[in-house]
Amino acid sequence: MAASRENFRTIWPHPDDRGAVQIIDQRLLPHEYRVHNLSSWQDAEVAISDMYVRGAPLIGATAAWGLYLAAYHSGGSEDEVRSAAAALLASRPTAVNLRWAVERVLAAVAGHDRDLVGTLRDEASAICEEDVAISRGIGEHGVALLESIARRKQGDTVNILTHCNAGALATINWGTATAPMYVAQERGIDIHVWVDETRPRNQGSQLTAWELGQAGIPHTLVVDNAGGHLMQHGMVDIVITGTDRTTRAGDVANKIGTYLKALAAHDNKVPFYVGLPSTTIDWTIRDGVGQIPIEERDPREVSHIRGALGEETVDVRTTAGATPISNYAFDVTPARLVTGLITERGICEASEAGLTALFPEHAGSS
Amino acid sequence: MAASRENFRTIWPHPDDRGAVQIIDQRLLPHEYRVHNLSSWQDAEVAISDMYVRGAPLIGATAAWGLYLAAYHSGGSEDEVRSAAAALLASRPTAVNLRWAVERVLAAVAGHDRDLVGTLRDEASAICEEDVAISRGIGEHGVALLESIARRKQGDTVNILTHCNAGALATINWGTATAPMYVAQERGIDIHVWVDETRPRNQGSQLTAWELGQAGIPHTLVVDNAGGHLMQHGMVDIVITGTDRTTRAGDVANKIGTYLKALAAHDNKVPFYVGLPSTTIDWTIRDGVGQIPIEERDPREVSHIRGALGEETVDVRTTAGATPISNYAFDVTPARLVTGLITERGICEASEAGLTALFPEHAGSS
Repeated sequence: MAASRENFRTIWPHPDDRGAVQIIDQRLLPHEYRVHNLSSWQDAEVAISDMYVRGAPLIGATAAWGLYLAAYHSGGSEDEVRSAAAALLASRPTAVNLRWAVERVLAAVAGHDRDLVGTLRDEASAICEEDVAISRGIGEHGVALLESIARRKQGDTVNILTHCNAGALATINWGTATAPMYVAQERGIDIHVWVDETRPRNQGSQLTAWELGQAGIPHTLVVDNAGGHLMQHGMVDIVITGTDRTTRAGDVANKIGTYLKALAAHDNKVPFYVGLPSTTIDWTIRDGVGQIPIEERDPREVSHIRGALGEETVDVRTTAGATPISNYAFDVTPARLVTGLITERGICEASEAGLTALFPEHAGSS
Repeated sequence: MAASRENFRTIWPHPDDRGAVQIIDQRLLPHEYRVHNLSSWQDAEVAISDMYVRGAPLIGATAAWGLYLAAYHSGGSEDEVRSAAAALLASRPTAVNLRWAVERVLAAVAGHDRDLVGTLRDEASAICEEDVAISRGIGEHGVALLESIARRKQGDTVNILTHCNAGALATINWGTATAPMYVAQERGIDIHVWVDETRPRNQGSQLTAWELGQAGIPHTLVVDNAGGHLMQHGMVDIVITGTDRTTRAGDVANKIGTYLKALAAHDNKVPFYVGLPSTTIDWTIRDGVGQIPIEERDPREVSHIRGALGEETVDVRTTAGATPISNYAFDVTPARLVTGLITERGICEASEAGLTALFPEHAGSS
């Protein structure tokens, strides 16, 4: 991946078939790298709900390409596109830029003056290329934080902790939380990343560790329980995570467990930053804990775990069969625990004042 | 287990063989219940270091029985007992009452005036029966906290969160953190327990959920990441954990991740209690973060996970083979985050004043 960082993509139109789109089946990583075809909007819906793809920007892009597929296979039916939009919107309730992407495509449908299929293909493609530029922007702004720590440490390794995968695999390229890390690597800054395992789906151990390894960035996997201990002992200089949804007041909904790391960072005076494309900001709400619905997912994600057994990849059950399980997928980190938000326009305080200073077009829109 | 709560034991002399002791091989739970024979002190050492048994009180009791086995199989050699003591002490560096138990047995060796074998058998047996009484005492004192919450909630379910297994399986019976739960069950208090999975060894999902299930206590398994979310939403009334080592100032070393739950409890005004036998208090130190060495264990505990695959129990690798891993086993929760300590003599503030008021014999001993 390191050699082709610029050209890496997580979703792309099929090179030979205009009726298909290709993704990496991320459920199989790190054990197997397999490209998967989406040949209908229903395939895109399954890819989102069953987490072949995950990560807010990639979910949005997949939905956009799904609407293109709906148009393509119906011979350009607006009705079919609208039906697909409703289904795709319901496939992951927490991800705000799923809604953003679907609404953007529907606006293009409403305004189109030539063939619907071509319009939606252009729109999905534009969403992807814009996302790459956004991630790159997050990286360019965020790297300043790492440069500053490297200067303070006189060139000693900068230790970053991250939770879940807000990496290249969660976006189209570069990632959000990882974008500053990839840019730091380009600039020769000595970094090391503590990678939280991220139970129950292990996006850290299975995706973040894999993509950092592919890129040649030094990293160490730890269980989700370890971050507090690391911070107590000065082994973390900065925490950077992603977010699935950010309120206009700066509250951050991200993978379950993010809040615990923010508490530990706060208790140990470790800066806690969140990398986000502005498309994940929900300008309509302020109170994250009170207003963001938290998705509950299949208990099987907790009771079963995928792993390699010799040459095979198998799912084993780790719990007693009768054990009741609850599986909340996200939690909310209140803005008071967030040192700053790294956006494509720059870094701001996690507050309404901070966000609307960077995004003045939303200053009066609540 | 519920029907025989009083008689349940995690370690007991072999009924037919004076040269052996029996334990439950806890590595196989919840998939398989298998009794394992310890026929030498080396067997006891392996049982401790490889975690056939775990939990501070049970580790101490296993070491005590190991010293009995050393005496028995050497025909009562004090030298053999002392060699075994040195090896057993090194088998788990963090557990303070491993040292307590070994030193107690060595004192009995020094003072014995009849056959060494019989003396050590009586001593190991006494350590076990005293531990049962201690756990029961923790339960009797701790249940008052649950009764008080039940009264405030007018009989609504009392929701308890616990981390790791400070259960009957970690002691000889009753447990430490779980003792108040078992006593609450006897008294008909309506409780429900959130059980943290407790990565990497899954003592929560594999042991605590199993023993609460056996006892018929309502419980729900959650990943370690979930506790903050549960507390933010009022779904936890009290946190009760165990401890492997408590300083005289009330700092608590317990399974990695305990500190994160204490931070979340503090942030959400949820009381955070620790159940402990006074044998786990290290009266020689005050500063837990600075003075308690934290054991690093085999990375394989993180990279591999044991689970059921059909009828088989197998270990699968969940990470990419090349991923570097760090595996700290414990963290320290500072006393300022601990609402109170539940001991066999009563509940006290997590402070030197609180502890020495209950244990005045240690007031001047630092």
